[in-house]
Amino acid sequence: MNEEMETGMTRTVYLNGDYLPEEEAKVSIFDRAFLMADGVYEVTSVLGGKLIDFDGHAARLERSLKELDMEMPMPVDALLEIHRELVRLNALDEGMIYLQVTRGAPGDRDFVFPDPETTPQTVVLFTQSKPGLADNPAAKRGIRVISIPDIRWGRRDIKTVQLLYPSMGKMAAKKAGCDDAWLVEDGLVTEGTSNNAYIVKGGRIITRNLSSDILHGITRAAVLRFAREAQMEIEERPFTIEEAQGADEAFITSASTFVMPVVEVDGAKLGDGTPGPVATRLREIYLEEVKKAAV
Amino acid sequence: MNEEMETGMTRTVYLNGDYLPEEEAKVSIFDRAFLMADGVYEVTSVLGGKLIDFDGHAARLERSLKELDMEMPMPVDALLEIHRELVRLNALDEGMIYLQVTRGAPGDRDFVFPDPETTPQTVVLFTQSKPGLADNPAAKRGIRVISIPDIRWGRRDIKTVQLLYPSMGKMAAKKAGCDDAWLVEDGLVTEGTSNNAYIVKGGRIITRNLSSDILHGITRAAVLRFAREAQMEIEERPFTIEEAQGADEAFITSASTFVMPVVEVDGAKLGDGTPGPVATRLREIYLEEVKKAAV
Repeated sequence: MNEEMETGMTRTVYLNGDYLPEEEAKVSIFDRAFLMADGVYEVTSVLGGKLIDFDGHAARLERSLKELDMEMPMPVDALLEIHRELVRLNALDEGMIYLQVTRGAPGDRDFVFPDPETTPQTVVLFTQSKPGLADNPAAKRGIRVISIPDIRWGRRDIKTVQLLYPSMGKMAAKKAGCDDAWLVEDGLVTEGTSNNAYIVKGGRIITRNLSSDILHGITRAAVLRFAREAQMEIEERPFTIEEAQGADEAFITSASTFVMPVVEVDGAKLGDGTPGPVATRLREIYLEEVKKAAV
Repeated sequence: MNEEMETGMTRTVYLNGDYLPEEEAKVSIFDRAFLMADGVYEVTSVLGGKLIDFDGHAARLERSLKELDMEMPMPVDALLEIHRELVRLNALDEGMIYLQVTRGAPGDRDFVFPDPETTPQTVVLFTQSKPGLADNPAAKRGIRVISIPDIRWGRRDIKTVQLLYPSMGKMAAKKAGCDDAWLVEDGLVTEGTSNNAYIVKGGRIITRNLSSDILHGITRAAVLRFAREAQMEIEERPFTIEEAQGADEAFITSASTFVMPVVEVDGAKLGDGTPGPVATRLREIYLEEVKKAAV
């Protein structure tokens, strides 16, 4: 537990080489992320003060940057050190570390990319303390999702800060008395607002295949690997909301929810309306395995 | 002319009630625009120290905000006063005023919208001096465009800061030795990266009809009004790149380029490869009329 965080003490955050009180962490109004959503991010979970799947997040960060013609701001080792220093400075036990890299703050607003030689990237990291993250009570009762059209841009495989629509989706879910929204394109579920989506039917795990339509979840990759190791059957293909409503169970995965059972889709209860055995078992396996490998 | 601006003197910008040197204008790393592209903007041109079509931009700002469940940060009169004060403080003769409103900087990152009662919006305005904006030499020779797929989100009628793809589009155009990119969806041109697109065939002006597929250009509305007043025929419907390549002429409109002739589309010269008479005449009419109405 991290009582300081919970009672509103100031976090120490990282910004462009400095460790600062969060109130002092400010960026130029000309930062490309502020003006043009020109930045990418990663969220790494922390359990017991250790980082979950750090290498996976670092590799995806590098890929996102490359797809946008950006370089890694520093070697992976140096990024790891900053993550660890933030854990230490904030006495973080359970929670997340958020990392964002932007194309920097040139002297003015322009659609043309600034020269990286003269405009250094902006690098920000901050902690979010979430005591009880692994023992989340939501995992015991499951979450309820609605569906909304997926109108995001076409490169969802790049983890950009263009999160306005996912944010609107969460608000739509909240308004409907639910927990999250699944996004539907051409009649097929792409993913959740900030997670990958799965259904289970007849013992088979069904989740959309990787493409530029969805984020290539680091947790998704780990969970599918553990599922295969546990001899579970996996089918990577798109599914419809109707198929989800007729499934035995469903779940989502993400870096901060791990494996989270879904018990209702657009008002239709799945099975008996409680978390299914596959999701529950996968959550256990996932947490057990990643804690072992945490750094 | 504004020599100070051109030689790199510090601008005075507006940020949340204060007029500041641009270097001091900083926002929290928790600003929703920085973390989630949760903000909208407007660009108003300034000619002879006066604002072009200010009312149109203010009305669209209000609409963009409303579509995202945000309020106007202040009455239109107060916004106008800030625009005018920035013109005065920066001795701006020709150029633009950029305005951005974000959902503010809550204490932490969260997909859920912050409570507007406790999280005030962020309001930023700054000037961009562009001596010669009205007498732009590009208007005499015309610009060359390439086409790229339109993979932006589905609500392009809301002027959000999700400009990463338009920025990538400009870079693609630059790489191809051209000036801008036209975006194509389902085989039809939607618009340019930061402007509306038009072709002219047999004296008729053809431009895509308004919908959530394109920005509802303030300059577009004015230009079409002036064209109608000049008895020009207008057809509001989508067109293909092939149709554009077979057109007599083409042009774009935006707040900062006004009416700009297009002389080449994907390598195909239009007509004799020089600005056409309709675009040239519309530019003249537009500049004449908006200067008269400037405030």
